[in-house]
Amino acid sequence: MLEWLAMEFLGSHILSIDQFERTDIEKIFSTSDSLVPYAKRERITRVLQGAILSNMFFEPSTRTRISFGSAFNILGGEVRETTGIEATSLAKGESLYDTSRVLSGYSDIIVMRHHEAGSVNEFAEASRVPVINGGDGDNEHPSQALLDLYTIKKELESKNKSIDGLRIALIGDLKYGRAVHSLCKVLCLYQNVTINLISPKKLKLPSSIKKSFKESSVSFFETDDITKGISEVDIIYMTRIQEERFSSKSESGKYKGLMSLNQEIYTKNCEPNTIIMHPLPRDSRPDANELDPDLNQNPNLAIYRQTDNGLLIRMALFSLVLGVQNKIEESTSNVAWFSNK
Amino acid sequence: MLEWLAMEFLGSHILSIDQFERTDIEKIFSTSDSLVPYAKRERITRVLQGAILSNMFFEPSTRTRISFGSAFNILGGEVRETTGIEATSLAKGESLYDTSRVLSGYSDIIVMRHHEAGSVNEFAEASRVPVINGGDGDNEHPSQALLDLYTIKKELESKNKSIDGLRIALIGDLKYGRAVHSLCKVLCLYQNVTINLISPKKLKLPSSIKKSFKESSVSFFETDDITKGISEVDIIYMTRIQEERFSSKSESGKYKGLMSLNQEIYTKNCEPNTIIMHPLPRDSRPDANELDPDLNQNPNLAIYRQTDNGLLIRMALFSLVLGVQNKIEESTSNVAWFSNK
Amino acid sequence: MLEWLAMEFLGSHILSIDQFERTDIEKIFSTSDSLVPYAKRERITRVLQGAILSNMFFEPSTRTRISFGSAFNILGGEVRETTGIEATSLAKGESLYDTSRVLSGYSDIIVMRHHEAGSVNEFAEASRVPVINGGDGDNEHPSQALLDLYTIKKELESKNKSIDGLRIALIGDLKYGRAVHSLCKVLCLYQNVTINLISPKKLKLPSSIKKSFKESSVSFFETDDITKGISEVDIIYMTRIQEERFSSKSESGKYKGLMSLNQEIYTKNCEPNTIIMHPLPRDSRPDANELDPDLNQNPNLAIYRQTDNGLLIRMALFSLVLGVQNKIEESTSNVAWFSNK
Repeated sequence: MLEWLAMEFLGSHILSIDQFERTDIEKIFSTSDSLVPYAKRERITRVLQGAILSNMFFEPSTRTRISFGSAFNILGGEVRETTGIEATSLAKGESLYDTSRVLSGYSDIIVMRHHEAGSVNEFAEASRVPVINGGDGDNEHPSQALLDLYTIKKELESKNKSIDGLRIALIGDLKYGRAVHSLCKVLCLYQNVTINLISPKKLKLPSSIKKSFKESSVSFFETDDITKGISEVDIIYMTRIQEERFSSKSESGKYKGLMSLNQEIYTKNCEPNTIIMHPLPRDSRPDANELDPDLNQNPNLAIYRQTDNGLLIRMALFSLVLGVQNKIEESTSNVAWFSNK
Repeated sequence: MLEWLAMEFLGSHILSIDQFERTDIEKIFSTSDSLVPYAKRERITRVLQGAILSNMFFEPSTRTRISFGSAFNILGGEVRETTGIEATSLAKGESLYDTSRVLSGYSDIIVMRHHEAGSVNEFAEASRVPVINGGDGDNEHPSQALLDLYTIKKELESKNKSIDGLRIALIGDLKYGRAVHSLCKVLCLYQNVTINLISPKKLKLPSSIKKSFKESSVSFFETDDITKGISEVDIIYMTRIQEERFSSKSESGKYKGLMSLNQEIYTKNCEPNTIIMHPLPRDSRPDANELDPDLNQNPNLAIYRQTDNGLLIRMALFSLVLGVQNKIEESTSNVAWFSNK
Repeated sequence: MLEWLAMEFLGSHILSIDQFERTDIEKIFSTSDSLVPYAKRERITRVLQGAILSNMFFEPSTRTRISFGSAFNILGGEVRETTGIEATSLAKGESLYDTSRVLSGYSDIIVMRHHEAGSVNEFAEASRVPVINGGDGDNEHPSQALLDLYTIKKELESKNKSIDGLRIALIGDLKYGRAVHSLCKVLCLYQNVTINLISPKKLKLPSSIKKSFKESSVSFFETDDITKGISEVDIIYMTRIQEERFSSKSESGKYKGLMSLNQEIYTKNCEPNTIIMHPLPRDSRPDANELDPDLNQNPNLAIYRQTDNGLLIRMALFSLVLGVQNKIEESTSNVAWFSNK
């Protein structure tokens, strides 16, 4: 891909991982790198002082909601927040079009999560300010895919490897997990990637995505045996059974606990220092136990580095879309308070 | 009215449209005008840096809540927010008096919405800081009336007209709509206003308000035929059936869709460039369809200019009540981020 | 106690009133004193500019939540907030450990309330930033105990008395009230304290706490007759029946209204200028009426001074834990807006 085809971030909506080429992603990642001192609280910046984020979470979320909000605060901006759908005008029959037109008059940028696939795109079309998709049903969650890929890059770099040539195992609910779907799409932009797809037979990756693999240079194989798939990979990416996408709890319950990783399985099957990732939340109830707590002290468990990276990625997206990535240092100062981050 | 009778805004509660004389309204409007550069993000101000708004919405709201919160943020202040009544001390039997006394110790100004008429007044009496009524049941919503009137003024000015001499059609649920009631009251302060009241027979404007018309110089007539009322007016003000004020959904359902405006009716009946307003949210479900989406491209549809004006009006109220309207420019700076508002 | 045994506040969790010695409490109180000009809005400070508080209220709260949030805002910091448990990852089976590890990456300090005793300790163990307990079930609520004691100190000082030698009546639900429990514990640090325990027979103070009295210099007696216990005290501390801790409403209902104070009882039984306190919310429904509204004009009713003091105590805790208590004056400026606090 040629440099001049790179997307223009300034004022753009961030709706889908599909809108990025490899150079765009590299730009996001280098911006994230430059923001580390602010996320680590070594320096503060006020570059977005006076700017307002509307953080609209029509579907429940803690991690993503707070991560976007904190990212905006760290850059110096203010956050107005809405959670839940009952308390909103949508419940009085207002169209997404109206909600979007109105809200975009109250804020400088909007992050939106909604349970309906496609709703964020519809909202963005009507908006007068940039909109970032914070997850729309089982459709897209682009900042998650970016933070996953950024984590893969960082973890591999510490081993002198790169994403080109990556060997990764994707485990669990590959049918409904939107994080996995977006990650698969973005991996197609890289060279010589090998993906082991490990899932119950009924929860296989959709064939449309496997088709994308074939059109790119990704090689993959499928299995329902976790021990077969994790032996020769750099990264294990475990996922949660997406209960809320199944027709019933008894239906989703059939798959709970089928794919489970603990220290013993890890030691027996994996190469040394295989990295473990998870988009979180991980279901830690005994019947699910996707990643056993006995892995918590394993230094290769990267799940909290992953969420920390999420903060960086979201700061980078805000910076690029609002065009302040080169102005951040102009307004920095020392951190006055105690911090040992 | 003489200038020296104007209300003292400094430290006052804003509870009812009745507390304003015409000079007060003019002061609010000229303050709103002066705040345009900040709302449009051409400049930022930090004049309320360090001040705290308690945004207490005991009844659901998106638009009004975010609008007040953003207005305060744009002026540089911080917002602490409460939404819903279940999660509050009121549910543990605390009196409004106590809630008010306590909260007013935590903040510099309070905006409050509550489903019960009169509750905000009761709350304000106990408060140690200024309280702005964000809507109390079917009683008052003064900032809505002000933003409506400000919009009327601005739209007419662009046609070299003024509020004196206004011809307006009020359409829909004129019985329960508090926005309409407050607008009617405030229009009584102006000269030679003509109001066409268009509603189903059972949802006519309360006679107490019609009495006010007779005591001032407002002339009006009533009809249930929308085509008869919209032909010779400057402004069409459409409203929503206030479902939540009816005894049942089947009761309110009888009136849904009876009053509906679309491009065809508009073109056939209205003078060119008749302005269309609505307090929003407009019910866009097919059975209601108060303002048809085919009007969305009509440049005379002023509904989003209306909500944008709401931000200005709320900024003006905060500025006047907290006495910073003349200090705003002392603390301005350039906007660092990309904005095309 | 020797000065060098005092706790190190810097970076510490604040989980229990038990962690404080008398010198620690004195440090918190002198810090609170120094913060009065900021709470009273005579000066503003930006010392925590750029810092983020995660205000996690998994159990409903208005007063405590807003008080912590405002305290952080007054010091110049930003607040990200979560209320209710349904809307969170915990509902998807995430462990407190994971929630804590993740959230502590998004913020500089966390305040947490949770309905389960012990949960905040568990959360704090996993956190990478300091955690302040905002109340965990019937277990602890340390900032409440501190603000109660601070109020006692201030009210006594205005009468040239000190906490040593205090005579206090604790009234109401002494079994379940965590505010009372914590207050009792902390009073054990002082000399010659006399406590009158006035409660229905089934809602007596737990014997473990009475044991602490015996191990310290606190003398106490128990009665279920309110008139007997309030005649020779400096402070009356009234509490609410903790409805939410009883098995049923009919069970808690038995005790409602049994302990009630009004102006007549006060005048007839109390020494002049006996101070009246209550942790709030007070239940003002007619069947409870813990403190009759006819006391509202009594200058010895200290309940709102108590909540005002809560703001100071929380500001002091943030300042000490984040180590900015000596830097506050470096970043002060005048208040630009009207305030008559």
